[in-house]
Formats: sequence, C-alpha cells, structure tokens
Amino acid sequence: MEPRGGDIAGYRERFGKDPLDFSASLNPLGMPEAVRAAARQAVDAAVPYPDPFCRDLTIALASRLRVCPDQVFFGNGAAEVIFRLVQARRPHTALLTAPSFAEYECALESVGCDIRFHAVRSDRDFILGDDILAAIIPGVDMLFLCQPNNPTGQCIEPERMRRIVDRCRQTGTMLIVDECFLPFVENGQSLSVVPLLTGNPGLVVVGSFTKLYAMAGLRLGFALCGDPAMVTAMRRVGPPWSVSNVAQAAGLAALAEDDYVRRSLAVLREEKHFLRDAMTRLGLRLIGGEANYLFFSSRREDVVESPLPLGIMVRGCGTFRGLGPRYYRIAVRLHAENVRLIEALRTLDGL
Amino acid sequence: MEPRGGDIAGYRERFGKDPLDFSASLNPLGMPEAVRAAARQAVDAAVPYPDPFCRDLTIALASRLRVCPDQVFFGNGAAEVIFRLVQARRPHTALLTAPSFAEYECALESVGCDIRFHAVRSDRDFILGDDILAAIIPGVDMLFLCQPNNPTGQCIEPERMRRIVDRCRQTGTMLIVDECFLPFVENGQSLSVVPLLTGNPGLVVVGSFTKLYAMAGLRLGFALCGDPAMVTAMRRVGPPWSVSNVAQAAGLAALAEDDYVRRSLAVLREEKHFLRDAMTRLGLRLIGGEANYLFFSSRREDVVESPLPLGIMVRGCGTFRGLGPRYYRIAVRLHAENVRLIEALRTLDGL
Repeated sequence: MEPRGGDIAGYRERFGKDPLDFSASLNPLGMPEAVRAAARQAVDAAVPYPDPFCRDLTIALASRLRVCPDQVFFGNGAAEVIFRLVQARRPHTALLTAPSFAEYECALESVGCDIRFHAVRSDRDFILGDDILAAIIPGVDMLFLCQPNNPTGQCIEPERMRRIVDRCRQTGTMLIVDECFLPFVENGQSLSVVPLLTGNPGLVVVGSFTKLYAMAGLRLGFALCGDPAMVTAMRRVGPPWSVSNVAQAAGLAALAEDDYVRRSLAVLREEKHFLRDAMTRLGLRLIGGEANYLFFSSRREDVVESPLPLGIMVRGCGTFRGLGPRYYRIAVRLHAENVRLIEALRTLDGL
Repeated sequence: MEPRGGDIAGYRERFGKDPLDFSASLNPLGMPEAVRAAARQAVDAAVPYPDPFCRDLTIALASRLRVCPDQVFFGNGAAEVIFRLVQARRPHTALLTAPSFAEYECALESVGCDIRFHAVRSDRDFILGDDILAAIIPGVDMLFLCQPNNPTGQCIEPERMRRIVDRCRQTGTMLIVDECFLPFVENGQSLSVVPLLTGNPGLVVVGSFTKLYAMAGLRLGFALCGDPAMVTAMRRVGPPWSVSNVAQAAGLAALAEDDYVRRSLAVLREEKHFLRDAMTRLGLRLIGGEANYLFFSSRREDVVESPLPLGIMVRGCGTFRGLGPRYYRIAVRLHAENVRLIEALRTLDGL
C-alpha cells in the first residue's frame, strides 16, 4: 500500500511513540461530546446486526440536504463509497485530475479501468481551468472531481462547475463530486452541487462524517445520487451490513451539531491565518488552502522526515500523481499544536 | 435486497416494536463484558483513522491460529471479506452448493461470474456427498463451502473435506471454506481446514467475530489465505480503512475470552437438547443442527408470519436457493427465550 495520511500505527511501529499528527485532515476540535456519547451507547446495543439500510440516518440526512431518501447511500467511510460507485458503474474509461485524492485511482484500477489524467498546472496554482471541458468527451464514462481538492485545497468556482456538469450530461459521463472537505470551506454550501442532482441523473455527490466530526476511527461516508437506481446498484456490489451500528448512531448525533460546525469554522479561520503568516515568513510557499488543511511547497525535499524528532507527522505529497517531492500538506490543528509545528519547521534551514 | 436474518429495523418499521429475534444466529450469551468495555474505550480513541493493517489484531489472531501474519486479512465483517475475495480473484466460473449462505452468490454476481449450483439433496438431509468431486473440474475458478453449512447446520466430514481440498488443488480451483459458525460446533476445531493452508495456496478460510462474540453491530471478519499474495490482492479491491478502531479493539479483547467460548458451548448443548426435544414433539422435522442454530421443516408455510403476534422473528428459508417455503432456521437462545419460542410455535396447528 502506498503512503497515506494518518497511519499512526505505522509511525508508532517505526518510532516507538505516537506522533502529533498533521498528516490526517480532521476537525481540530475533536469529536463532539454528543457524538462520542451516542457511539458509546451504541456499543451497548451492538449485539444485533446493524440496520443494512441505515434508515434513521438516511431520513435525517435526506431531510437536512433536501434530497429524497432513495438518493442516499451510506458506506463504511467515503473511501468505501468511492469503491462502490466504481464497482457499480464499472467504467471502461475514466478521467481524473492530477493531483487529487489517490483513492479514485485505486478504485478505478480495481476494475481494470483505463484512466486518463488531466494535469492541473502548478503555474496556475493548481486551479482547475476550463480546459478540462475539452477532455470530457463521449466514451469517458466517469469523472471524479474533489471540491475542494485534496491535497491542494483549491475550489472549482460555481460557474465552471456548472459548465462541467452540463458537459458531462451531454457526453453521458458520470460525474462524481467529492465534497468531503466542503463543510470546512467558508460559504462552502454555495459551491455544493447538491442542488444540481435534480435534472442530472449522472451526477453523484460524495460526503463524509469522518473529517467534519473527527470520527475517522468509526468510518462513515455517503453518496447522494442523481439517479436512485445508482443507490440500488451500489447495494449490490458489496455487503449489506457495511455501516456499523456505532457509526450510524454517531452520524445521527452529529447531524444535530450545528454549533460545533460553526465553532470549527471560526477556529480554522483564525488558525489558518496564524499558520499562513508564520509559514510564509519561514520561506514556504502556500497554495490554495480553502479547506481545513494547508498545501505548500518548500525548497527542501526532506520536510516529512526532518521534524520527526519533535514527534510531528506531516504529509509529504510526492506520492500524489503530478506532484514532486517538495510539496506537503498539513492539517490545521489547535493553536498550541500549530505553534509546535512552526517550532519544528523553524529548526530546518532553507525552507 | 432479498430478505436476510436480523433485520430488526425492518421488523420495527412493519410492526412498531422490537422482536425477540431468532432469525440472526448470534451467541446467546451476548457480548462479553471485556469486549464491550474495549469497544467503549475505543470510541474515546476514534478521532484518528484506524490502523489500515489491523496490526495488533493480525498478530494476535495469527499467533492463536498458528498462521503467518501475512496470510491474514481483516474486513468489515465476513460479508465484506467474501466480496473482497471474489473481487480480488474475479472468477469467470464458480461452483456453489445449494442451499447455502446467499452472500456467496451475491458477491459472485457482482463481478458477472457464471455460477454453477451443486444441489445437496434433501433426502440425504442436506449432507454434502462425494458427488461434489465430479463437479470440481478445470475451468471452475472458485468453490465456496460453508462449514457447518448455513442454514442447514450440516458439517462436511474431515476425510471428504480433504478429498475436496486435494481435488481443488489439482483443478486450480480456489476453495473458500467459510468457518464462521465452526467455533459453535462441538470439537469443531478437528473439522477446520486451517492446518491445510500450508501446501494449498488456493485455499482460503473465512472466519467471523460477529457471531461467536455477539458483536454483529460492530462488524469484524477475516480471511486466512494459503497464499499471502491473495491478502495483497484483497487490499487493492477495497478501501484501506475498512475495519473501524472499535471493531479492532473489540476483536483483540475477544481473543482472550476462552472461558466465555467454553460457557457458550455448554449453554448451546443444553438448549439444543431442549429445543430439539420440544420441537420434535410439536411435529417439526429437525435436520442437521451442528451449529448455534437449528434447521427444520414444517408442514406449514406460514411459520414465519404466524408467531409474529408474540413478537418472535424466525428465519424463513424459502429465499435460500434449493429450499421450499416449508424450511426454517432459528437461533438457539437462552432458556427463557427458547421457552417463549416453543410457546409461540405451540399456538400453531399442524406443524
């Protein structure tokens, strides 16, 4: 398996201690207390099989997002949802932007799909341009877009997104927009394509509870499908009980945490300002950064390895297709932790 | 989705109350307290991503079963393991016995596999005979066997199993032996094919924590592969973080519960005796029953629906391929619950 963010057990195995993990991009406020309580309580009710249809959670999310319950599929984390989408649709040819989240490529490879890559240019700060439209042609069965993009944190502006959606409808391309990090973006809701699901049966939105509610250990993600038949197809390509009762209970509690989400955005605003400022002064070049993580380049190739004596784990982005070894991603954490990161980076010359 | 056991939420939706569930075959003693405590504690540590390699659990299970850690794959319940095996191997042609666990067929259909069915005869009490050997021919890529079989509770005797293993090695057929219910069988270990993994790279054993430790809500299953390359292939066809940290912690605690397993077998022995006796006197025909569930036929087709006023859910087996509507399966539960089942059945005439 290629390197991924958040492999704390791997770090522990290598260095004999737990890191301060900036490699996984989770909500810095940690799991809301009500979510934790609901998950604990669910353990006491975990003898029977979980509801294979996640009925309560589906109704709650559908009502919140104003979609029909039969458009909602819940999975064992967004990663499982991505694999199910690919295995249900079985595309022959797919289009990916690069760099982007590696799981799209892994899922497409699992069905032997022919993958075309649309390189998003570094000299445009990795902002997706209208040139993607020319790559969306008949015969391209599937396109993944990450909004905001992982690892760059760049968003696709609404007008461009709408042109892409229209183009995909014309070419019969299933468009999957991964909005897992969108709740962390200021006014992110205005960028969501959820309102476009009506009228676009080939459109799918992927979302996650894992990142927003800092419950990565519990696993909970979902897809909203323009066409309910896609939900049925996704159920067929995997086991019926893929979402634990603990994740279902945690998710239901999480949907009531509006105030926690507001507080999270306020903390992120402040801490991104602090980190951007401090990192720029250290000579690092920051790019994008609309989400709860910051993407940057350095003159040094060894930033991942070097701060390790201070117990800090950052995400080297050399494993992302289209990125060299001088690109990195860090999660935005709480202030005292961010200060430790800056201190660690300060020990390195020539950043 | 076709009917499956244990859909309590579905029952609640239909009847407005929770059933006494005899349809899902879980350990009647419930979740061991140490497992529950470990799972609860894991909720407090569920912010980061779970270990994608389930390192601690893998080492513990491998040592317990005397296999190499690189032969072990953990998944989100045995059902996910079955789908991963099929998606990793992508068989063109597979052989299934009928009746058996429906998930094999679902998984094989998800990859468009051509499925041949070997009918196990009701006039032989659904005991698999040596005639299966003639159906294992070159070109059959995969064979699933369930030991003991679900829903019949019949076991394959060791000598016959060894002939099947040998035959599959000769024909290049991957043999998957599902031993999820084997821990419930008296002296079940003597029936396990785990010792045959060495020397049979095409052999895979599937196991589950869900049933034995009554933790179906948490999801935890595994595969032991004769060939470690199969483990690598299984990792590629699904998401990396498919086992929650809660399931990993629960599984680790469960492996220390030897005494609980012994007590479970003692309860099952006694209660199966009670149920067999009472059900036979009611006119039902009991078949097999080596596991923690009992399989029976009745002259009535409506046993599933009829005891519902008493809040009891049993498993109608008409949805199993090769079984008519007069076959049923019940879990063996605690004595007072089993008494309630018998009382419910007693209200029906002409069983």
